[in-house]
Amino acid sequence: MSRALVLTPGDPQGIGPEVACRALVARPPARPVLLVGDPEPVRREAEACGLELAPLDAHDLPTGAVGLLPPPPGPEPVEVRALRWAVAACLDGRAAGLVTGPIHKARLAAQGFAHAGHTDFLGALCGVERPVMAFTGGELRVALVTVHLPLARVPAAVTSEGVLHTVCRAHEALRDQLGLPAPRLVVCGLNPHAGDDGLLGREELEVIGPAVRAARAQGVDARGPVSAEAAFLDARAGRADLVVAMYHDQGLAPLKAVDFGRSVNWTLGMPIVRTSVDHGTADDLVGTGRADPSSMVAALELASQLADVREGRA
Amino acid sequence: MSRALVLTPGDPQGIGPEVACRALVARPPARPVLLVGDPEPVRREAEACGLELAPLDAHDLPTGAVGLLPPPPGPEPVEVRALRWAVAACLDGRAAGLVTGPIHKARLAAQGFAHAGHTDFLGALCGVERPVMAFTGGELRVALVTVHLPLARVPAAVTSEGVLHTVCRAHEALRDQLGLPAPRLVVCGLNPHAGDDGLLGREELEVIGPAVRAARAQGVDARGPVSAEAAFLDARAGRADLVVAMYHDQGLAPLKAVDFGRSVNWTLGMPIVRTSVDHGTADDLVGTGRADPSSMVAALELASQLADVREGRA
Repeated sequence: MSRALVLTPGDPQGIGPEVACRALVARPPARPVLLVGDPEPVRREAEACGLELAPLDAHDLPTGAVGLLPPPPGPEPVEVRALRWAVAACLDGRAAGLVTGPIHKARLAAQGFAHAGHTDFLGALCGVERPVMAFTGGELRVALVTVHLPLARVPAAVTSEGVLHTVCRAHEALRDQLGLPAPRLVVCGLNPHAGDDGLLGREELEVIGPAVRAARAQGVDARGPVSAEAAFLDARAGRADLVVAMYHDQGLAPLKAVDFGRSVNWTLGMPIVRTSVDHGTADDLVGTGRADPSSMVAALELASQLADVREGRA
Repeated sequence: MSRALVLTPGDPQGIGPEVACRALVARPPARPVLLVGDPEPVRREAEACGLELAPLDAHDLPTGAVGLLPPPPGPEPVEVRALRWAVAACLDGRAAGLVTGPIHKARLAAQGFAHAGHTDFLGALCGVERPVMAFTGGELRVALVTVHLPLARVPAAVTSEGVLHTVCRAHEALRDQLGLPAPRLVVCGLNPHAGDDGLLGREELEVIGPAVRAARAQGVDARGPVSAEAAFLDARAGRADLVVAMYHDQGLAPLKAVDFGRSVNWTLGMPIVRTSVDHGTADDLVGTGRADPSSMVAALELASQLADVREGRA
């Protein structure tokens, strides 16, 4: 019997509970799923969309069944307690992987949550200092060297060590989590035309190029730096399995232009399988029926695939 | 009888002559075309691909015919003289528009060419201080506020005046050159998530937002700043006719991810129709037969369409 995926719907005031329930109805996953979070909105949304919640026990859930578990009580917000429980269950092997719905950083910060974001918190729970944020969207995969920084702070934040870290974690994840025997990475430059031999910036020569060479010296099949335009074209044409982008919009604007809202956040460099929706809590959509569960469907599918590889089934 | 488009193949050592001739064979345009440039490589490539060159006179060329005109002699490189002739012919109405092949900036600079680029030079010839670089690629259109700058210099170069200028020129071009009665523009932020209400940068609040409001006050249908991810998704979903991007990779990485090498450079804010291939001279491809004429085909088609609108035929 397959081990369960843990799904944390996230912020109980956002669309997380709704997209979780609707995704599970729309595309019942091949593994049992344990919803861990505030039970009230999950029960309400499950009833609204006809999702049957099985009686509770992650270990006994038959394939396809969905259970609901309120997290252990405590002083922290329910979605934070849910994440703590979920990571522990993944780390000790009770669960096969974690799929997360959206949390609301500002609301959590107001309640004393000190982490920079969802992924950082999960990294801390796993003892990983620098998890790598990646996204998949249909035919494209992107890993980011820097994430949520004002653009003016990006150039200084792109370091050789950061590029090398991102490239190596991406290589390992494609090989070990996705099961690609020989992953091919293409690495973007920071500047237009990848700096045009130094005419449009020197970071390619001084920072990114050395990191790509260091990765190659470790046996990683990485090319670059190449201009971002060429990198995404390469990936779409099947000449690369993943694009390493230097910053948020360089990676995500192309991905989402191609992907039409079905992209998935995939955390690399972690000892557990973790995928997530790529959207926020969208408070304005709650109760309107207009929230789109596509990203949650895709996040569940990817987590299931990664768990299969990890368990040697793929 | 239709007036001719002028096509400057550009650098005689690059792939310009080849892609020009092959494009004209692959998709003969609805208007006559006058090739203006170094005659030797054009004659060679025309012969190689079976392109018939009509005897010369732009005014008498029948629809579909292609003529070849060496530019007037002079001390400047042949491709520069060709551009001077071509712009004069467009400005005085002898020609319907200009389609350019690639020039090689470094080679021209070594011969004393002082302009920052192709588009700047054409702007100067037309008396336009700040032409706007835009690109079309199938279903997407993008105009750029800044172009060939190292990323570290982008934030300071994005000014309210520059955003407003770009938005207004894009609006006018969509209305007057492309014939859209009510163009809808979407304007990207500079920072991830369009700055997230100031948490990830203040340029959206202080620079871009005011420019978008100023454009709206002038009757331009512009929305934003929105995150680049959302902007391109909007445009692909048909909710916007053009995306205004703040910098090169923000605009072109998504465009080229979608477009597979068929995008066209379109110059806005000019008194003439001008389109161009979106690639360089690709010296390493010369003579290999591997140069792809798709962008030239698309540049000719767009110029023909823009000329039709201008002449009231569309």
